[in-house]
Amino acid sequence: MPPSSSSNLGVDYYAFHDVDAAPEGKDLDDTQRILESVTDKLLKRQDETGVKLLWATQNMFSHPRFMNGASTNPDMTTFSWACAKTKMAMDAGLKLGADNHVFWGGREGYMSLLNSDVKQELDQMGAFLNMVVDYKAKIGADYQLLIEPKPREPCKHQYDYDGQSVMGFCRQYGLEDHFKTNVEPNHTTLAGHEFEHDIMIGSVFGDLGSIDANSGDMMLGWDTDQFCYDVRKTTMIMWYVLKQGGLHKGGLNFDAKNRRESSDLEDFFIAHIGGMDTYARGLKAAAAIIEDGVLDGMVEKRYSSFDSDLGKKLFDGKGTLEEFEAYAKAQGEPGVHSGKQELYENIFAEYIH
Amino acid sequence: MPPSSSSNLGVDYYAFHDVDAAPEGKDLDDTQRILESVTDKLLKRQDETGVKLLWATQNMFSHPRFMNGASTNPDMTTFSWACAKTKMAMDAGLKLGADNHVFWGGREGYMSLLNSDVKQELDQMGAFLNMVVDYKAKIGADYQLLIEPKPREPCKHQYDYDGQSVMGFCRQYGLEDHFKTNVEPNHTTLAGHEFEHDIMIGSVFGDLGSIDANSGDMMLGWDTDQFCYDVRKTTMIMWYVLKQGGLHKGGLNFDAKNRRESSDLEDFFIAHIGGMDTYARGLKAAAAIIEDGVLDGMVEKRYSSFDSDLGKKLFDGKGTLEEFEAYAKAQGEPGVHSGKQELYENIFAEYIH
Amino acid sequence: MPPSSSSNLGVDYYAFHDVDAAPEGKDLDDTQRILESVTDKLLKRQDETGVKLLWATQNMFSHPRFMNGASTNPDMTTFSWACAKTKMAMDAGLKLGADNHVFWGGREGYMSLLNSDVKQELDQMGAFLNMVVDYKAKIGADYQLLIEPKPREPCKHQYDYDGQSVMGFCRQYGLEDHFKTNVEPNHTTLAGHEFEHDIMIGSVFGDLGSIDANSGDMMLGWDTDQFCYDVRKTTMIMWYVLKQGGLHKGGLNFDAKNRRESSDLEDFFIAHIGGMDTYARGLKAAAAIIEDGVLDGMVEKRYSSFDSDLGKKLFDGKGTLEEFEAYAKAQGEPGVHSGKQELYENIFAEYIH
Amino acid sequence: MPPSSSSNLGVDYYAFHDVDAAPEGKDLDDTQRILESVTDKLLKRQDETGVKLLWATQNMFSHPRFMNGASTNPDMTTFSWACAKTKMAMDAGLKLGADNHVFWGGREGYMSLLNSDVKQELDQMGAFLNMVVDYKAKIGADYQLLIEPKPREPCKHQYDYDGQSVMGFCRQYGLEDHFKTNVEPNHTTLAGHEFEHDIMIGSVFGDLGSIDANSGDMMLGWDTDQFCYDVRKTTMIMWYVLKQGGLHKGGLNFDAKNRRESSDLEDFFIAHIGGMDTYARGLKAAAAIIEDGVLDGMVEKRYSSFDSDLGKKLFDGKGTLEEFEAYAKAQGEPGVHSGKQELYENIFAEYIH
Repeated sequence: MPPSSSSNLGVDYYAFHDVDAAPEGKDLDDTQRILESVTDKLLKRQDETGVKLLWATQNMFSHPRFMNGASTNPDMTTFSWACAKTKMAMDAGLKLGADNHVFWGGREGYMSLLNSDVKQELDQMGAFLNMVVDYKAKIGADYQLLIEPKPREPCKHQYDYDGQSVMGFCRQYGLEDHFKTNVEPNHTTLAGHEFEHDIMIGSVFGDLGSIDANSGDMMLGWDTDQFCYDVRKTTMIMWYVLKQGGLHKGGLNFDAKNRRESSDLEDFFIAHIGGMDTYARGLKAAAAIIEDGVLDGMVEKRYSSFDSDLGKKLFDGKGTLEEFEAYAKAQGEPGVHSGKQELYENIFAEYIH
Repeated sequence: MPPSSSSNLGVDYYAFHDVDAAPEGKDLDDTQRILESVTDKLLKRQDETGVKLLWATQNMFSHPRFMNGASTNPDMTTFSWACAKTKMAMDAGLKLGADNHVFWGGREGYMSLLNSDVKQELDQMGAFLNMVVDYKAKIGADYQLLIEPKPREPCKHQYDYDGQSVMGFCRQYGLEDHFKTNVEPNHTTLAGHEFEHDIMIGSVFGDLGSIDANSGDMMLGWDTDQFCYDVRKTTMIMWYVLKQGGLHKGGLNFDAKNRRESSDLEDFFIAHIGGMDTYARGLKAAAAIIEDGVLDGMVEKRYSSFDSDLGKKLFDGKGTLEEFEAYAKAQGEPGVHSGKQELYENIFAEYIH
Repeated sequence: MPPSSSSNLGVDYYAFHDVDAAPEGKDLDDTQRILESVTDKLLKRQDETGVKLLWATQNMFSHPRFMNGASTNPDMTTFSWACAKTKMAMDAGLKLGADNHVFWGGREGYMSLLNSDVKQELDQMGAFLNMVVDYKAKIGADYQLLIEPKPREPCKHQYDYDGQSVMGFCRQYGLEDHFKTNVEPNHTTLAGHEFEHDIMIGSVFGDLGSIDANSGDMMLGWDTDQFCYDVRKTTMIMWYVLKQGGLHKGGLNFDAKNRRESSDLEDFFIAHIGGMDTYARGLKAAAAIIEDGVLDGMVEKRYSSFDSDLGKKLFDGKGTLEEFEAYAKAQGEPGVHSGKQELYENIFAEYIH
Repeated sequence: MPPSSSSNLGVDYYAFHDVDAAPEGKDLDDTQRILESVTDKLLKRQDETGVKLLWATQNMFSHPRFMNGASTNPDMTTFSWACAKTKMAMDAGLKLGADNHVFWGGREGYMSLLNSDVKQELDQMGAFLNMVVDYKAKIGADYQLLIEPKPREPCKHQYDYDGQSVMGFCRQYGLEDHFKTNVEPNHTTLAGHEFEHDIMIGSVFGDLGSIDANSGDMMLGWDTDQFCYDVRKTTMIMWYVLKQGGLHKGGLNFDAKNRRESSDLEDFFIAHIGGMDTYARGLKAAAAIIEDGVLDGMVEKRYSSFDSDLGKKLFDGKGTLEEFEAYAKAQGEPGVHSGKQELYENIFAEYIH
């Protein structure tokens, strides 16, 4: 996740990993000094340009010391290093007025079940993130905390597998009021879901915080971090974003990179401009879909039989199996209701062309 | 999930889907009468043979009326049919003294996001399962309620995607004290996890209720329901089962079938005997692993740095980032601790050969 | 592969599997009589409507007798039934003036390597297809023979895995001048290739004969036979078709079906009309791409360094490593040439919107 | 593919990539001098120890100059560098008495179809390998030429996708008498085939030359190059090797590496010893299977109906559809013959435990 922002590109926000901006020093105190000196410069530059910080994060996956995990490391000293790095990055985010703080746990998972105590590791991660919540309160930061799901790579299995795993984990460890998800849609496809699935699942439960606007390659089993040039996909994404009233503190971040073989300087600009345009086109298509109301109206009508007193009772938690059995017997065999998938797909396609 | 039991095979339990034993009648009342008549016969046969009922379940995925979902159906009449069928099956389970009652939601998911209101569907499923909890209490049943995760097929995406999704869903809808998981390991591989992953994740959180002892084919993208003849895999499964003190109310159920091309009568016996033997071998290997204590001891030692006052504070929820930062600074750069995966794998292999 | 054609839809061609039109009789002679009677009616109807037969084929995968293979069956009697059925279907195609005759070998593969002699099975299939070539010559048929690649399902591994496998097999058994491929693009994705890959590979080697214009679902591991509503994909397909000057004897066949949940009569029309429109849109976009010549021109320029005497020598088979070594030393380190993938992708996207 | 050999491990062979042993110099002449100096030392060491060279190969995928391909590069200068490097490596192999010379084309494929002329690239690769054949003859080398299939990574699609693709390509470009395959079984699983598939397919056609004895992780979509500790898999491999009378010039090469997290020196020995032992166990199990003759006998009997005059005629290329039709009519409906997969699997399992 390299920083992706530039006033050349006319973008209002940037984002960074600690070590991308400030290399580690000879020990933790030295690292802290370097980070402070670098954030002084960043703050000055923010003031000069008006560019703001979308999010900061700590890289706890590249350095070999984290090879067996950061907050889930079997060694408590390494665990404590994860705490120290996180505290520094949270301080930096506060200083720079970050809107969000991201947790991507590239090493928070297992390589082999044989040498892993998964319960212990999850308890460590749960306790760690609860300390993060406490520390945020203590320093009075108001940035939004985000967890970025990804199923694997470099780990064999990452605990933050997908949106639903993250939301379930948060509920298990009492973190559900404090964290939202930062979804990278191609992480979702690597988890076996449709591109827009984790955007959708986060959105309908009020858990979608921010988006890494990358694409992957459906034929490849690893994370390619390509720019997304498929307006079908960006339309789906922006449709959910518009329906939840925007991303609020979150944003669209290009954690994307040019192909290794795209070696000209201009390729960098072509890639980013195309990426932004594709999301802009998706936004316009999604807005048109919502304004027209055809598709949403069809969906609403599809579920309208629940808009009755019995339906209300159900969602109020006052229904009983007996009552619905009686209703079933009274109604007899249900009518056949076509799912009309091809109609929906053809109407959707009209907005793309 | 066909019934898999026989006194010829020397097995003490059987299991069944409502419609496998009792075909539907001309309406719900008629269906109820048929089911009652069939369960009378089953009860008599249970008494004669001593064979017991591991679990009953309702098939709410084969009949076309459920093509758009059962409890997640957009049509409230169909929803109410799901309630009626479930109530009947729960009554049948009570009558037959079932140890468990299973929910596999083959149609509880989506085929296309375009025509689906996922939040509505999940709310329906949550309300439905809460009514199940109430009804179980009301009739005084003491069977264990089980949800069987599977990622897809026939649905494009099933809400009970995997163990962690199910556990998260239960916590979202207040069901966590009432449901455990019935894990079919090859469903797990279809969700992108290792064969034993969902067994493990259920086990460490006390959520593993029962096991469908099938295998899949790692090269195929659909559920093959093969018998498992790989003792490496059954050893991993039985290791987790032994560590949690057995399956209690649950059991090992063969929801497996012969290959379509295995058309001789004897193939049926060969397949089942081989399947049982492979689990028996796995059980013996797992017991040896636990008795020797080598692998478990290595894992325990790996995490032993957390067995300190500071570690205890962490798990008591009383740690702070500042305290761990101080510890990190005091300790300096962590030592390099090999994960020793190849050593674990080679020791494990010794128990298999 | 159901017949997909109708004068309601304004389509000039139809296609069929033997058993879709004419059910089997009590023995082979009876089956032959039924097929002849049905083809008499089809011929009359062809004459009345002017609708022509794109292809006929024999279904040698649904009947249980073929469960262990048709031409690759371990039992010579079953093998001979495959011969008999094929001969009848070839006769029917001749009688009806079919433009093509298709071979899809759904059971021509293995379920398990343990019980299979793969060399024997491939030799059987090679000999079988050579008899087909002989028989075609003998009866004076001039239809094009087509093999349809698919990686698996119902088999674990199908010998006609993908386009390159089929082309290699044909060369191994001396069939390369007699068979082309009938490509179904979603079979290609199931083989791990991009949607348009097998269209491309067939096309550049002059081996692409016809197309089954279906789509799949990239998240699902089985063949869904959906209609394709993504103009990006149809543009890629039609681009290759136009570059090779059309499909000649072949055509675009919808071996697609509505979703099971699309139960209204109108869904059938919506699905087909949308499918045809999407290919029509792809055709127009592909024609514009070719007329503009921008993308093709960029590709041509990319390889232009081979348009030299040394390059010609290479492709004439007269180059030597020594000569190219000398050229390398004379030229020194190669320049850096960007692959410019993002530029190509963005230009391509302009033709879609 | 690092060199994997050591007299500490008691292994008689080693193997190397040019740049692993001899870094590139400032230009091609300099690189040649360095390689000659290094191979002088290697030759001396070979003489001293008796360790022999299994194969040499040229790395034409790591250096950025090959980012768009080596022999398939759009730029003729880069193509000529591929020729120069190959010639040097072939000279080195001759000098060191290598038994084989390997071609793994990590960049010989495409990243995007939009910027690629696949026919041109395949023609380049075909011409290149024909020059290799000529050069080998010219210098009088008698090593075996090997192509190593792999479906992708780093390329999106590699032309040497799998065993059958390579064999088909060789036949298209007249190379079939000069190249065999060097199969790495986990490359096969990445192509969607069973672990042993490419070993099998090469073996039955006399195209299997050598084996890279690595394993992958079935849940991961990239090449992990793990050691194989599953005796089921090594038994399948060694069974095919024994049936073809051994690997002749080829061998078993560990192109495997320890997990990144296995950081102790002893892990290197544990990993290699376990890997060798697992193949040794597989060899013993395979030998027992062949000596007992049960499984092979069952397979032979399964196809025995072809051991007739009519069967012989078929394989002599003298059969006709008419003759087999007559046979089908005479025989009537074929008998039902169980595939007995579970029986085969259970017998096979007996040899593993």
